[in-house]
Amino acid sequence: MFRMALDAMGGDYAPLEIVRGGILALKEEKDLFVYFVGDKEKIKPILEKEASSLKGRYEIVHAPDNVKMNEAPSRVLRKKNSSLYQAGLLVREGKADAMVSAGNTGAVLTVGKFIIGAIEELERPSIGVAFPNPKGYTVLLDVGANVDVKPRHLVQFAVIGHTYAQEMLGIKNPRVGILSIGEEEGKGNELVKEAYPLLKETKLNFVGNAEGRDIFNGNFDVIVCDGFVGNVVLKASESLGFAILKMIKEEVKKSFWAKLGAWLMKPAFKALKQKADFAEYGGIPLLGAKAPVMITHGRANAKAIRNAIRAAQDFYTHHFNDVLRKNLLELAGEVLAKAKNGNGK
Amino acid sequence: MFRMALDAMGGDYAPLEIVRGGILALKEEKDLFVYFVGDKEKIKPILEKEASSLKGRYEIVHAPDNVKMNEAPSRVLRKKNSSLYQAGLLVREGKADAMVSAGNTGAVLTVGKFIIGAIEELERPSIGVAFPNPKGYTVLLDVGANVDVKPRHLVQFAVIGHTYAQEMLGIKNPRVGILSIGEEEGKGNELVKEAYPLLKETKLNFVGNAEGRDIFNGNFDVIVCDGFVGNVVLKASESLGFAILKMIKEEVKKSFWAKLGAWLMKPAFKALKQKADFAEYGGIPLLGAKAPVMITHGRANAKAIRNAIRAAQDFYTHHFNDVLRKNLLELAGEVLAKAKNGNGK
Repeated sequence: MFRMALDAMGGDYAPLEIVRGGILALKEEKDLFVYFVGDKEKIKPILEKEASSLKGRYEIVHAPDNVKMNEAPSRVLRKKNSSLYQAGLLVREGKADAMVSAGNTGAVLTVGKFIIGAIEELERPSIGVAFPNPKGYTVLLDVGANVDVKPRHLVQFAVIGHTYAQEMLGIKNPRVGILSIGEEEGKGNELVKEAYPLLKETKLNFVGNAEGRDIFNGNFDVIVCDGFVGNVVLKASESLGFAILKMIKEEVKKSFWAKLGAWLMKPAFKALKQKADFAEYGGIPLLGAKAPVMITHGRANAKAIRNAIRAAQDFYTHHFNDVLRKNLLELAGEVLAKAKNGNGK
Repeated sequence: MFRMALDAMGGDYAPLEIVRGGILALKEEKDLFVYFVGDKEKIKPILEKEASSLKGRYEIVHAPDNVKMNEAPSRVLRKKNSSLYQAGLLVREGKADAMVSAGNTGAVLTVGKFIIGAIEELERPSIGVAFPNPKGYTVLLDVGANVDVKPRHLVQFAVIGHTYAQEMLGIKNPRVGILSIGEEEGKGNELVKEAYPLLKETKLNFVGNAEGRDIFNGNFDVIVCDGFVGNVVLKASESLGFAILKMIKEEVKKSFWAKLGAWLMKPAFKALKQKADFAEYGGIPLLGAKAPVMITHGRANAKAIRNAIRAAQDFYTHHFNDVLRKNLLELAGEVLAKAKNGNGK
């Protein structure tokens, strides 16, 4: 039995779409139990109306407060009656096996980092995104959980990314790179220059510096960077995708034939959009937390929530954290121990 | 008379396409003189064959050596007989008013920074790129000339960007932002947190933190960042554009109707590609150097070189550096003086 803590009050379309997402998942997956966490007054009517056949497979955990989208993320730690805090607590206390939230991203991260926490072998969990490319996917991490990092954290991210690529994306012996501004060793900022030799010493398939272009050309399976650069790249890429589609639309408007062409191409555009739409794939995982945490887009609808629950369950059934623990030890144990004790890197 | 130093040996298609680019420019622009810098043996036959009518409007400066694409950029400073070094020298000695090179980007930067140098009011020149968006253009800088920077350098970049947007792109009162990972003041890494109040103190139209998405949505006219982040974003964006086109092609292959649609849309795609193709617009300027320096793509053909020469001339006729000097003083003079003397920021 996989027990899910669902933050029913987070997101632009909460609670209706969120609760519906949970119901969808329950209907499709027999071995699932869902805690709907949030304002009982609002959640109960939806469940009574739409999930009468699912009695006994869910429970409402009353948490009347919530963290607003524009609130400072750290506020969640003082809002103990918020749906997000209570969802995190269910995981921390071992009652739930994973958490999904479409709420304030920073607040979800805060709960992931401080209420649920990282596995012991790891200092910090990290957010990873699998970017599509013409050959498959490239995992970029960290994309925003850790702004100022030390070289050894990049080594930890590399093992997390390796584990994600191998276990969840089925990539054998993933090629790992470090994001920089030139291919050769020695190119980059201070952080990259210090992390490079550490990564080289690990037993990962480290192939050196990756450049910005390598995020989308399929030459690397995993690329590590600090959360500042990663977050900028993530948001810039999403936005560029939209801008390109918008500019295509503008150009198309200028000609009848182009309009017809665009209409004929609709299915192709749709398939592409799906490939690029992270929400479609269930949001972004906080990797290395003690239990799977999925952060979905604020605009998540029922389908996106259903997918996020599915993704969390995937991490759970793959025993992701067990493999990660083993990999941290076997692939980078020595390097990490040395870096931590020896020189503070 | 605008006198141009053209590095005839730099780039994948040198010297033929480069020399042809110079010839194109000479034919189109009467008030132009070109120094073709490079191996006389190779350049002379091209000019004799294709530019017999242009005698007296160009000169060959013999420089037999050259900097290879994969050579360490700093090597150029010891290769005094290289075409690139000699082209830089022509500008330094006041014989030429601007330089164009399609050679090793790092080496061109090195010549721009150390042979030509920044204007006195500025510590470092910066590379800026005007990214297209559905509403116009957003200037991002620095995109690779300055990897590790101090807060006051970001202020300098901001004035450079303001001047570029106003003078070259015709944007009145450009909205200036600093690249970060959240909208609110206080979000970001150490550099951003320190630079934010300095920018706020200037007389620029500083509107606060920009996020990755703002590079492509038209909400900002100028966005400043360190050269590491900027370079990653630049290369990632170019590559994502290619990846999207490639993925569209793959999807299109799957259906006859989509194929027909794509064929009908060809002109629209082409227009878009042109908007996104920086080479089309004459390469990337090194802003704040004592004279205009244009860095074109290594793959530059004659047309790209012609455009780069045109762009350099544009900077020259706009008296870009004079306006920049004035702006540095009027918009940020106090802030910069304080930052430099007071606290080393």
